Amino acid sequence: MASKPAENMLWGGRFTEGLDPLMVAYNNSLPYDKILWRQDIKGSIAFARANLNAGILTQSEFDQIVAGFEVVAKEWEEGRFEAKEHDEDIHTANERRLSEVIGKEVGGKLHTGRSRNEQVATDMRLWLRDELRGVERELQDLIRVTISRAEKEVEFIMPGYTHLQKAQPVRWSHWLLSHATAFASELTRLREVIKRVNLSPLGCGALAGNPFKIDRETMATELGFSGLLHNSMNAVGDRDFIMETMQWGASFMLKISRWAEDLIIYSSLEFGFVRLADAYSTGSSLMPQKKNADSLELLRGKSGRAFGQMAGLMMTIKGLPTTYNKDLQESMEPMLDHLPTLHNSIQIATGVLSTLSVFPDKMRAALAPEMLATEIADYLVRKGVPFREGHHVSGRVVAEAERRGIPMDQLSDADLRGVDERLDADVRGCFDYDRAVDLKDAVGGTSRGAVLGQVEELKRIVEGR
Amino acid sequence: MASKPAENMLWGGRFTEGLDPLMVAYNNSLPYDKILWRQDIKGSIAFARANLNAGILTQSEFDQIVAGFEVVAKEWEEGRFEAKEHDEDIHTANERRLSEVIGKEVGGKLHTGRSRNEQVATDMRLWLRDELRGVERELQDLIRVTISRAEKEVEFIMPGYTHLQKAQPVRWSHWLLSHATAFASELTRLREVIKRVNLSPLGCGALAGNPFKIDRETMATELGFSGLLHNSMNAVGDRDFIMETMQWGASFMLKISRWAEDLIIYSSLEFGFVRLADAYSTGSSLMPQKKNADSLELLRGKSGRAFGQMAGLMMTIKGLPTTYNKDLQESMEPMLDHLPTLHNSIQIATGVLSTLSVFPDKMRAALAPEMLATEIADYLVRKGVPFREGHHVSGRVVAEAERRGIPMDQLSDADLRGVDERLDADVRGCFDYDRAVDLKDAVGGTSRGAVLGQVEELKRIVEGR
Amino acid sequence: MASKPAENMLWGGRFTEGLDPLMVAYNNSLPYDKILWRQDIKGSIAFARANLNAGILTQSEFDQIVAGFEVVAKEWEEGRFEAKEHDEDIHTANERRLSEVIGKEVGGKLHTGRSRNEQVATDMRLWLRDELRGVERELQDLIRVTISRAEKEVEFIMPGYTHLQKAQPVRWSHWLLSHATAFASELTRLREVIKRVNLSPLGCGALAGNPFKIDRETMATELGFSGLLHNSMNAVGDRDFIMETMQWGASFMLKISRWAEDLIIYSSLEFGFVRLADAYSTGSSLMPQKKNADSLELLRGKSGRAFGQMAGLMMTIKGLPTTYNKDLQESMEPMLDHLPTLHNSIQIATGVLSTLSVFPDKMRAALAPEMLATEIADYLVRKGVPFREGHHVSGRVVAEAERRGIPMDQLSDADLRGVDERLDADVRGCFDYDRAVDLKDAVGGTSRGAVLGQVEELKRIVEGR
Amino acid sequence: MASKPAENMLWGGRFTEGLDPLMVAYNNSLPYDKILWRQDIKGSIAFARANLNAGILTQSEFDQIVAGFEVVAKEWEEGRFEAKEHDEDIHTANERRLSEVIGKEVGGKLHTGRSRNEQVATDMRLWLRDELRGVERELQDLIRVTISRAEKEVEFIMPGYTHLQKAQPVRWSHWLLSHATAFASELTRLREVIKRVNLSPLGCGALAGNPFKIDRETMATELGFSGLLHNSMNAVGDRDFIMETMQWGASFMLKISRWAEDLIIYSSLEFGFVRLADAYSTGSSLMPQKKNADSLELLRGKSGRAFGQMAGLMMTIKGLPTTYNKDLQESMEPMLDHLPTLHNSIQIATGVLSTLSVFPDKMRAALAPEMLATEIADYLVRKGVPFREGHHVSGRVVAEAERRGIPMDQLSDADLRGVDERLDADVRGCFDYDRAVDLKDAVGGTSRGAVLGQVEELKRIVEGR
Repeated sequence: MASKPAENMLWGGRFTEGLDPLMVAYNNSLPYDKILWRQDIKGSIAFARANLNAGILTQSEFDQIVAGFEVVAKEWEEGRFEAKEHDEDIHTANERRLSEVIGKEVGGKLHTGRSRNEQVATDMRLWLRDELRGVERELQDLIRVTISRAEKEVEFIMPGYTHLQKAQPVRWSHWLLSHATAFASELTRLREVIKRVNLSPLGCGALAGNPFKIDRETMATELGFSGLLHNSMNAVGDRDFIMETMQWGASFMLKISRWAEDLIIYSSLEFGFVRLADAYSTGSSLMPQKKNADSLELLRGKSGRAFGQMAGLMMTIKGLPTTYNKDLQESMEPMLDHLPTLHNSIQIATGVLSTLSVFPDKMRAALAPEMLATEIADYLVRKGVPFREGHHVSGRVVAEAERRGIPMDQLSDADLRGVDERLDADVRGCFDYDRAVDLKDAVGGTSRGAVLGQVEELKRIVEGR
Repeated sequence: MASKPAENMLWGGRFTEGLDPLMVAYNNSLPYDKILWRQDIKGSIAFARANLNAGILTQSEFDQIVAGFEVVAKEWEEGRFEAKEHDEDIHTANERRLSEVIGKEVGGKLHTGRSRNEQVATDMRLWLRDELRGVERELQDLIRVTISRAEKEVEFIMPGYTHLQKAQPVRWSHWLLSHATAFASELTRLREVIKRVNLSPLGCGALAGNPFKIDRETMATELGFSGLLHNSMNAVGDRDFIMETMQWGASFMLKISRWAEDLIIYSSLEFGFVRLADAYSTGSSLMPQKKNADSLELLRGKSGRAFGQMAGLMMTIKGLPTTYNKDLQESMEPMLDHLPTLHNSIQIATGVLSTLSVFPDKMRAALAPEMLATEIADYLVRKGVPFREGHHVSGRVVAEAERRGIPMDQLSDADLRGVDERLDADVRGCFDYDRAVDLKDAVGGTSRGAVLGQVEELKRIVEGR
Repeated sequence: MASKPAENMLWGGRFTEGLDPLMVAYNNSLPYDKILWRQDIKGSIAFARANLNAGILTQSEFDQIVAGFEVVAKEWEEGRFEAKEHDEDIHTANERRLSEVIGKEVGGKLHTGRSRNEQVATDMRLWLRDELRGVERELQDLIRVTISRAEKEVEFIMPGYTHLQKAQPVRWSHWLLSHATAFASELTRLREVIKRVNLSPLGCGALAGNPFKIDRETMATELGFSGLLHNSMNAVGDRDFIMETMQWGASFMLKISRWAEDLIIYSSLEFGFVRLADAYSTGSSLMPQKKNADSLELLRGKSGRAFGQMAGLMMTIKGLPTTYNKDLQESMEPMLDHLPTLHNSIQIATGVLSTLSVFPDKMRAALAPEMLATEIADYLVRKGVPFREGHHVSGRVVAEAERRGIPMDQLSDADLRGVDERLDADVRGCFDYDRAVDLKDAVGGTSRGAVLGQVEELKRIVEGR
Repeated sequence: MASKPAENMLWGGRFTEGLDPLMVAYNNSLPYDKILWRQDIKGSIAFARANLNAGILTQSEFDQIVAGFEVVAKEWEEGRFEAKEHDEDIHTANERRLSEVIGKEVGGKLHTGRSRNEQVATDMRLWLRDELRGVERELQDLIRVTISRAEKEVEFIMPGYTHLQKAQPVRWSHWLLSHATAFASELTRLREVIKRVNLSPLGCGALAGNPFKIDRETMATELGFSGLLHNSMNAVGDRDFIMETMQWGASFMLKISRWAEDLIIYSSLEFGFVRLADAYSTGSSLMPQKKNADSLELLRGKSGRAFGQMAGLMMTIKGLPTTYNKDLQESMEPMLDHLPTLHNSIQIATGVLSTLSVFPDKMRAALAPEMLATEIADYLVRKGVPFREGHHVSGRVVAEAERRGIPMDQLSDADLRGVDERLDADVRGCFDYDRAVDLKDAVGGTSRGAVLGQVEELKRIVEGR
């Protein structure tokens, strides 16, 4: 015996029979998953072809299905597709419309042995794979633009910072490539993600598998998948391909956030190393003199969006029982927003960098003699002084300059010898930013040769050689 | 001297002059912030009135502005408002249109001493406050429905679980109220959040404050704010009111996720304590016999969405410099989706609970004598046996029943005495679920009285007494 | 019939009988929850006293328990407490030791009607409440120090930034108070969190309640709780008091991250507005001239730690079934690390601010005439020109100065009139930073009076008036 | 002129000169990074050998350094290493001690051209690489155990669930392999992560590179790195190798959370399919009959911990300026806890599974005829009926059985024909769970052959073939 709250309970009356309209809306994914109409039709045709080969469909039935889907596709393409009341998702909508076009007798055979569980996973993987390949290309472009600037502007020398404090002089190109290196690492990782995305769930049924001897490999090949998902229970309940994509996206956007942070700081009036093109800046509604690096701030801010989508999906997935649960519908919208966010962000970043004005004179003017203190320690090392002692001596040189209120390189020979008698006149060679930069010529360093070596390394990665 | 990449660089050509169309789209918030048109107009009128009082506007100018906004508002209401090319946000769009309607001479005075920084914060706070008050009402309803069922169904006894293992018998109403108690705690917290949301940034300028002797208190009162934000630099760069809202929302949705998890388990065939109304269930495209608790799964899954929005905004905010940065635009879309998610989820939950079928017979059938083992220990305690010893004895009773392959309550008097001679015949009184339940009559317990006491406590909180 | 993997399976042999030592360690919380020994003993004594009043314990038994716990407490205090093999948590350890000290006959009565579920919740709430009160005091100090500097240094004027671009001149104190205002908002919220933490679960049993007529109110009063948790099923499975605490902590640390970000930027050589005391800076192992703001970077970085703990616990809680599940043990360690992180961070921040050197001359030198462009617009507004037009005119003044390559305030009267004839000679009054600052005298603005008004407002909040 | 708060300010007095003891503790990483002593010494020896080859050190100096480190290593191994006051991290501690052992003249040469920035990154990568290889082995074991059970228990048939509702019969092994398939996907990904972790930052200096012609490749080879990090500015400020590791770890733990969730549900009394060995269960302090799956709950709960560490580090990294910032120290502790969490969790999972009792009779008893409804639809499909129509007919069969209150397979031939005349007597063949299972023989399905095919596929992955 069941107990049900009486009619006169507090709540009630939002709907009379059968359907809560709010629930219908809560459940309905068509408003966003219709973007997958193309994948859904492609997958359905591949499935139908496999059922043709398995003897479930006749050639004529298959042909009708293909022809019918051509009609449906045209409607989508031309914005004429009309959703009906029970079209709760793109799969239902497409099949309903197909049956209207070719009749229920044949249309009703389309779904033979198939489940929406495998169908939605197939659609999502097809869509995502193509999108990610686009991201790959855009990311290659961003790195190529960076490399191109790095080669062209290799002679610019700027202060290198640690802790946002002036540390040692470096090449501007070295800075550029530091980010390109990070991006290239993400590029490599992205290619691995795509491999895991591009696997076929089609032919897995609702959970138990397909009972009609369907040839999953052939279907997968038709759809451009590079392999199969090998366990049907896993295949239908798995959204980790989206989670991994968004882990990648969130990781990549964090790298963008660091790149943007640098450029925001470098474009402040106090630093003044770079200036954004007008195309990527905006003004103020109150202060006419303002020119704000909105593009970079949006890029930095959107690292939050990308992260949130990833974190949210992980939360959704946590602790779910095996196979498909409706919770997984919550993977769709984040995915559908995540990819445009990536596309746009990479292209904006590429645009910003491509049109950026760089001020090498300001960079050089920002160099300070104290940034050469390590050179003095290194000078002493070359004379056989232990580094720790050399570090100590050069620290005293810095202090002496501070005490006298002059830059380090204006200390006289006598001043220097006063600090430590091993500081001969030739120590002045240390007060040369270009020399300091070119001494760092081990792999990965800031010397001209080392920087150009990095360019080659990056080209190799970007071009997939 | 600036260096700019040459024309022939890899990238380039996406746009020729001035504007990157992708950047325009990336920056443009009108597609979503137009939802704030009403708040934007209200805020502008309040601001204009304050400028009237401050002598910046004449009465006639003010009247024109009000009349103009009536026209604009009507256009929005009737879906006739047409966005123009440079309408990058709702503020720009409204002011542009106002100036078209009433002319630039007066329209151009609207923004006197105001910044979009304060304006957007004002609009968001007004919108959010009203939405949260709606959430408060919906949450009250959910608790009221729970209370109502708890009162009506107070005699149903079910297994209480810890670790998803049968632990002790409890009232079904006790379970119901355990969630209502959690919801009520969130209700209290929500009321505090609303207080912090409902503070006025209007009159703060871009960051430095208003130079035209504007009366912020009066504006705040007109807009229904309960107080002012007291530092203009803070006011324009603060989105913590959204973050706190979403921390609340994510916290609340976690509670929903636990409630939904329980009901999903209880509605499995293996448990069978409850069954969802058809309005909140769906079928399978492959398996005709299936009836899935989709509503509950969506509710559980959306805890991820709410969490992700919160986490994303926190990431966006992290490490931002003081005052307004464009990154903060990323607070808008999460907020605009968060609130509908809350509204819908609470109402769906209320609907599910209101229409739920409950099977008290199945609940009672699921009770197992072993769940009364603690009663034996308590029986011995009442005879002066230390609890630890009693616990040990009752453990041996359980073991004895297991050894014999019978339920504990079918052990004979002799069997029981064989375990421990202090187990007299009256120990059989322990084998009574109703008695066990009603013994737990301390505040918060599962006895009839204690449960009804909880009902009173909750009513007090819900009704804000 | 059960199937069990054969002896010769791949895995096996890590343990022979009964216990997997790794599982024992995985399960054992004593290494960290022993920090709660004091709360555990206090709670046990309160529980025993309630059982005395309920007639479960005699006065003599109660006295023995109290005396025994004095011995146990002393062992903890003096670091002499020895954990034994089965002491899997602080509750087990304390009770085991008590029974050794006073004998099992009485010791075995301690746990009568009590469950570890309520006990651990009680211990955690007691501990957390006291810690949070400490945080409240520390936060008050941080705000007081900020206020104190703000009062003392109210005459320093600096560039106010939006988008990290110079916007308008503001008082340094205005900046200081912008963060103090954010902290004060958190202080208010913290006081609300404490109220929800400080509620008693004691007397709730494992889930169903207490069967021995225990007086929960009296116990709660003895332990300093301000109220009861009113549903036993909820009380034992709730860790939302920790989640809310960590939401607060993560929110607060985000505010610290913004404060630290500002100070890191302001302490860069390019800005140079402030310098950290040596006590809060460190040097470089390679570069002798470096002085890094490590303290601020750690503060900013630890916002990640605090956030991660919150996010992790939320993940742990998501989707748990009702009442206690062992997953909840994962709330303990994050909590135990979260609070010290907060304590230390607030105190470090207070230390940094207290000892900070501030360079008002550098601040003033960083002001740029273009930051006064809005003043020109406002000047025109006062002459009746619509703001939009004034904004446009002042924009042209900025452009004219740029064209001539001179600061705006060096344009001649003729130059200015050349831009717009309404720019009379008295427009030069706009080129005065102090005047500009003091014009912003609406509530919350940067004028002297407005800033001092904020000081008063903050004092009111901090002192809880 | 600097302004500093006067002596009598509110705060102050926590320390008198130079050092804030709290800051020293806040900054000090030795308490946790000492775990890297071995890696630190190994890295230092490799660095010294490279400096020997570069002519910076003589053979004798190098030999002294090696001999000295042997002494230091022995002290660590035997727990005799004594930290001194200024040992703020493992690098400082080791070098300080080395200089005590072999004298400052040679000890002071160790750090020549090296920075702690590269050193800490090197130590962390070495440690992490080895730990991850351990994780790889443990994960292989978990999959092997799963495979082994799947092969042995391939005949057990259980209800397959979607939405936690009985869907179709599947093999228990199919369920086992669904998780093993997820684990194997993570295994593949892990191997990619290790590749990115195992790259050498050594020889990168503080940011600008090494000026002493150091041979980075040879050093990398000595330390077992598989390649170099190619940009020094990137190398010293990158903690993405930890982030990616923790993204992996969090992703893997989510998979464990789903596996644990299933087993927790399956081990409830209502399902009863499995029972945990005592080694992985615990009892209740209040309820003697309880046996809780604590191990599984901890595994599920720790998915929160792993996630929180990942999310926290991502927050820490967000928006950091280029190269090293002290914020990055916050990557160490999460990493040091993350790996043990993974090690223990995988081993516990392996233990749980290895010792699990499985009840095939209970599984079979839980099968319900309604789970065969799809078989009827498939039966009709084989007769040429469109699937949609077949689905509809079988739905009516389910309804008819419900109406009569009997299981579907007890409908008479006439009853069945009454529903649809195409349901001939041979439709009874559908009412056979074993047949239903074995019809799903496409790749990935639940037939015997398909399941054993999955076993082979998994073996291939696990063994890296």
